[in-house]
Amino acid sequence: MSERVARAALSRLSEPGDARLSGLVGQLGAGKVYDLLRDEEDVGGVFTDVATRLRGLDPERELEEASAKGIRFLCPEDAEWPRCLDDLASVEPLQGRGGAPLGLWVRGPLRLDEACDRSAAVVGSRSATSYGTSVASDIAASLASNAMAVVSGAAFGIDQASHRGALAVKGRTVAVLACGVDRPYPAAHKNLLDYIVDVGLVVSELPPGCSPTKLRFLSRNRVIAALTQGTVVVEAALRSGALNTANWALRLNRQVMGVPGPVTSAPSEGVHQLIRCRDAALVTKGADVLELLSQAGSFLSEEARGPDHPRDQLTEREQRVLEAVPAVQGASCDSIARTAGIAAGKVQEVLGLLHAKHLVENAGMRWRLVRD
Amino acid sequence: MSERVARAALSRLSEPGDARLSGLVGQLGAGKVYDLLRDEEDVGGVFTDVATRLRGLDPERELEEASAKGIRFLCPEDAEWPRCLDDLASVEPLQGRGGAPLGLWVRGPLRLDEACDRSAAVVGSRSATSYGTSVASDIAASLASNAMAVVSGAAFGIDQASHRGALAVKGRTVAVLACGVDRPYPAAHKNLLDYIVDVGLVVSELPPGCSPTKLRFLSRNRVIAALTQGTVVVEAALRSGALNTANWALRLNRQVMGVPGPVTSAPSEGVHQLIRCRDAALVTKGADVLELLSQAGSFLSEEARGPDHPRDQLTEREQRVLEAVPAVQGASCDSIARTAGIAAGKVQEVLGLLHAKHLVENAGMRWRLVRD
Repeated sequence: MSERVARAALSRLSEPGDARLSGLVGQLGAGKVYDLLRDEEDVGGVFTDVATRLRGLDPERELEEASAKGIRFLCPEDAEWPRCLDDLASVEPLQGRGGAPLGLWVRGPLRLDEACDRSAAVVGSRSATSYGTSVASDIAASLASNAMAVVSGAAFGIDQASHRGALAVKGRTVAVLACGVDRPYPAAHKNLLDYIVDVGLVVSELPPGCSPTKLRFLSRNRVIAALTQGTVVVEAALRSGALNTANWALRLNRQVMGVPGPVTSAPSEGVHQLIRCRDAALVTKGADVLELLSQAGSFLSEEARGPDHPRDQLTEREQRVLEAVPAVQGASCDSIARTAGIAAGKVQEVLGLLHAKHLVENAGMRWRLVRD
Repeated sequence: MSERVARAALSRLSEPGDARLSGLVGQLGAGKVYDLLRDEEDVGGVFTDVATRLRGLDPERELEEASAKGIRFLCPEDAEWPRCLDDLASVEPLQGRGGAPLGLWVRGPLRLDEACDRSAAVVGSRSATSYGTSVASDIAASLASNAMAVVSGAAFGIDQASHRGALAVKGRTVAVLACGVDRPYPAAHKNLLDYIVDVGLVVSELPPGCSPTKLRFLSRNRVIAALTQGTVVVEAALRSGALNTANWALRLNRQVMGVPGPVTSAPSEGVHQLIRCRDAALVTKGADVLELLSQAGSFLSEEARGPDHPRDQLTEREQRVLEAVPAVQGASCDSIARTAGIAAGKVQEVLGLLHAKHLVENAGMRWRLVRD
């Protein structure tokens, strides 16, 4: 049995994110592990539970059937395998999930390795506010317009808005599911997922047909974090799964970013905590994310600043004189000098300079401000 | 002429925040500087402009008149002088303003040094949103309830909300003005300022009667930053004066904090920039501020977390079995074992444990979830 077929078989037999199994496969090879399993030798208690699933397993036929449905099975030996996933092999599990994926089931026209080469996860709450979905969509559109793939989980709320934002600008987007890539989950996102299959990528560790479970979401989150250079959390309540993705990104030394919101909004609480306690970077727009994820200096987000005023360029003395000039009725040079606390001779000179800058005007011997 | 009288005279003759004059006074003493000035010897070009104000000056009478109005003039030699102000003598000017104040004109029943000993500035935009004023008021109330004085600038918007928040819980508040402490500015805050004079403190570098100017606001901001252990910016557009206060706090090595808001809200832009580019700490409530400003460990803001669920305590196997148990119609142990991918014998055992935890119930041979 080839490594690929053995990996496909193990992906059916095990739960994703089983770090011990993933480690064994890395050590012994998938073929050897599968053989041990079929011979019912238990290695370190890993396999007690898989016997139930072993009956009737035909991985070769499964790969053929998947292929007929346009689903390919990627293994570490494939050129399309994103090498960034290998980072998962060397970090500690989180909430019982961990390890590099045994393989990925993939649908869609893009190459996964190329899409992930420049990519960001944009994730967040399912119960998002309209503020959150609007910001997520804007950020995703901005990233996708700048040749960055947007990776998310196709869930309600922020995930959906992120995919849509990328699609709206004809950008690249990748949906990573916690169920088989042939299953539209949530069902209401069938059209969205169908469209992503047409123009982007839908990816899962789970073989076709599998349904999502809570543990599979946790496993899925680590794949989202590992596939990307950074994770942007747009809205996340304190127990949101998006924080699990962010924790994976931190563990993997990826950039973690959070979009703030009103401190009175529960869906922003988790994000604020991430910035406050976990040193996530605060981002307010796509350009901030691009700057953080690009090679140093290759993309610089312009520091926002207010409009310039001609007054900004004045010296201190000019400012003091200008402030002493009345707005409506004019005042004499002597009167201005008294208000400003500056000698009258100097004031005369400064008024001339301010006049040249069109900031003051005079009628007879009286000076007043030029109206804006 | 005593140092105090000389400082009062110089405070009338000069503009606040004149770092060169402040430095000369620190070096030569106020009496000596005043004498030089009266003799019209110019030291380093500092005094060219003050001659206009010198005529008719009677600092002793001025101090008496102020005292009759309940206004005291604090100098560095006074016990009530807050030593934290001295930090201003050793930092570089900002936007042309700097130096330690020559003195402070003060109204109100509190001792300024004691009030500032444990204090925070809460400042922000004059054109604040209702979100901003509500958050500022909540934070100020929380600080004031925890024996921390709230220092602000009595302006419209965030400043006003901060003072009011502290007053609402009968806490201590200090208003630092850019005009004489006998002038209600803005006029609409006359009642507020009168009340602060009754129960808190109103403070200014400027002698009674002086009106506010743009430069005086910049000078005032450095006093707010210097008087406090930290500055909280609640809302600030990109050119807001509150950012000037924050810059002073950074320069003085005080803690700078920002309250985030919607990224779509202009009055939050300056705050987000402060957190993003200047490493200000993100704070969402008074407890966060108290934690940052208190001695390490003396006040710990509890890390916010969502409610615990009984499910959180389950082992991975228990979770997998629980997820395989249907919600409405029951399922047999064998069926649950197949869904979970766990041997039936194990599943029977786990279902017993889940039953003891009131998570599943059985009717005959069929198991289903207990409704929440």
